[in-house]
Amino acid sequence: MELTEIGVIRDGYKTVEQAPRQGFLQDKLFTLEIKSEYKLATLEFEVGDLIQVVYFATGADRTMLRNRPHNRNEDRGVFSTRSPHRPNPINICIARIEEVNDKIIVSGLDALDYSPIIDIKGYSKRLHDGLIEKYK
Amino acid sequence: MELTEIGVIRDGYKTVEQAPRQGFLQDKLFTLEIKSEYKLATLEFEVGDLIQVVYFATGADRTMLRNRPHNRNEDRGVFSTRSPHRPNPINICIARIEEVNDKIIVSGLDALDYSPIIDIKGYSKRLHDGLIEKYK
Repeated sequence: MELTEIGVIRDGYKTVEQAPRQGFLQDKLFTLEIKSEYKLATLEFEVGDLIQVVYFATGADRTMLRNRPHNRNEDRGVFSTRSPHRPNPINICIARIEEVNDKIIVSGLDALDYSPIIDIKGYSKRLHDGLIEKYK
Repeated sequence: MELTEIGVIRDGYKTVEQAPRQGFLQDKLFTLEIKSEYKLATLEFEVGDLIQVVYFATGADRTMLRNRPHNRNEDRGVFSTRSPHRPNPINICIARIEEVNDKIIVSGLDALDYSPIIDIKGYSKRLHDGLIEKYK
């Protein structure tokens, strides 16, 4: 399965050390630079919309199957964690659109600068809560 | 960017017509068959855990940039929707682990049978709610 880069995250963290553990811990703004050939797919973006941003963790270790989360004393299987190190290093964040013009400015990511964007999906809190409600 | 199949979803819908519009509308159970070389990454799975399952929509139209959601009267850019038709047809569902033995049985997906699994991530409702709270 081959993925296409639909754009790139700019204004991201320059190093892993600069990145917070979760995107929502900081108020930093990120720019989504979408390639011109995909702009038609973004025309309905509006300030305040929540979106799910799917991007590639370029520097990840794809051989890692177990990893120690920062809040644990022992290793866990990476499929129980949200570590970027995993066989297919895809990160998923919910972001909020803060500005729409030629570029798209969002908050809520924890991405490194130049991370390749793979996909963006509309996100509905109502839909999410309906699902989670069922699992209680 | 090349993806590796880490397993396959079984007991999925046989046709697109059988699938509900959202995974949580039905109580159907699905089986996650993880390839033996990735089992080490799943050892901590427990009944009741919520996970985010990332899988590939094999039959999707990857050229589609605009699409009409079932509840709308006009086309929208696919990056504002959750349609499987998009340049990188990756689906993301929150599922609940219902049984763990040789196979992993989950509820909450809306996947076609034999969908390739790309990734599984641990999912924390608390973390999600903390993030969403900030966006209010």
